[in-house]
Amino acid sequence: MSFSPLIRQLIDALRILPGVGQKTAQRMALQLLERDRSGGLRLAQSLAKAMEGVGYCRQCRTLTEDDLCPQCADPRRDDSLLCVVQSPVDVFAVEQTGFRGRYFVLKGHLSPLDGLGPEAIGIPELLSRVADGAFTEVILATNPTVEGEATAHYIAQMLIPKGLTISRIAHGVPLGGELDLVDGGTLAHALAGRKPISL
Amino acid sequence: MSFSPLIRQLIDALRILPGVGQKTAQRMALQLLERDRSGGLRLAQSLAKAMEGVGYCRQCRTLTEDDLCPQCADPRRDDSLLCVVQSPVDVFAVEQTGFRGRYFVLKGHLSPLDGLGPEAIGIPELLSRVADGAFTEVILATNPTVEGEATAHYIAQMLIPKGLTISRIAHGVPLGGELDLVDGGTLAHALAGRKPISL
Ligand SMILES: [Zn+2]
Ligand SMILES: [Zn+2]
Repeated sequence: MSFSPLIRQLIDALRILPGVGQKTAQRMALQLLERDRSGGLRLAQSLAKAMEGVGYCRQCRTLTEDDLCPQCADPRRDDSLLCVVQSPVDVFAVEQTGFRGRYFVLKGHLSPLDGLGPEAIGIPELLSRVADGAFTEVILATNPTVEGEATAHYIAQMLIPKGLTISRIAHGVPLGGELDLVDGGTLAHALAGRKPISL
Repeated sequence: MSFSPLIRQLIDALRILPGVGQKTAQRMALQLLERDRSGGLRLAQSLAKAMEGVGYCRQCRTLTEDDLCPQCADPRRDDSLLCVVQSPVDVFAVEQTGFRGRYFVLKGHLSPLDGLGPEAIGIPELLSRVADGAFTEVILATNPTVEGEATAHYIAQMLIPKGLTISRIAHGVPLGGELDLVDGGTLAHALAGRKPISL
């Protein structure tokens, strides 16, 4: 009992959002109903439009409703640099660093046990993107996980014979952290990748 | 740059949800787009239906799309007990305790400085609900805050002359907590409200 059917359905529907459990969904539903119905309606419209209208960029395969995403459509970018990432949210993360080359977005990482081979994650499209472009360097920015490393290694093997510079984002200690809180593997990478200091 | 307009609008719209900042909204938007478009569409529909269809129960004034909410429509409840709460979410909280009387939902608490007097929070409707009902006891379950206490006190003053038993939910130490983490005011209430143990 307790909530009427429409409210119960709204609470259930809100639970598909990542990190939203029963209690948070209840709070969200009741707050919208009590304080912001027009905001709730705007959210309903934005959701419907995005779920129905957003597809994939023809060139980099990130999420966009247009033929080309904002990054691919931008004429003032470095066409010699291609950054390969695992998902659209990573494009946003790399953009935040000030990177202004081009992107290619894989559909996740290689995962042979789940039947996800090179075709499933978009390697053939990456190869034709590289063949079509004027890139001199391809930066592999897949996740620093076992699967992300394996995927980067696979791509490097495919691209190095084509005479391109292939680079991998550096592993090391994150800025602002305390050294004793950094896991051993990261610290080992940071030591191995140490750089001379010049004054 | 970075996200296309439809995605940016969706991220902005998600930020009206309580506790959802920019980063969480991005994660939500991209996860729906990449993994659960049908769930996103269901959420859009549930939101639109609830924002447009949900009103207030004629009798207890909680949120519902029907004339009477599930609690008021239920014939198997104790009609001698009325529980007064500050908001619809509190009905759910009290239901969870197993309480099976009737409810009345105020629109928040008295707040003279914000211009919220008895009319604004629904005291006249509470008085006519009490006059229409067969209640012998009214339980004041407004929040244990200064404003909730003042609101309970005001209601008690209005109802005691009518010959009803008026009660206030007990203050005390919450179950499962550690005594030294309980604030002083709560502990003082718990001491003053101590009960003899019978074996
Ligand atoms: Zn693109
Ligand atoms: Zn009701």
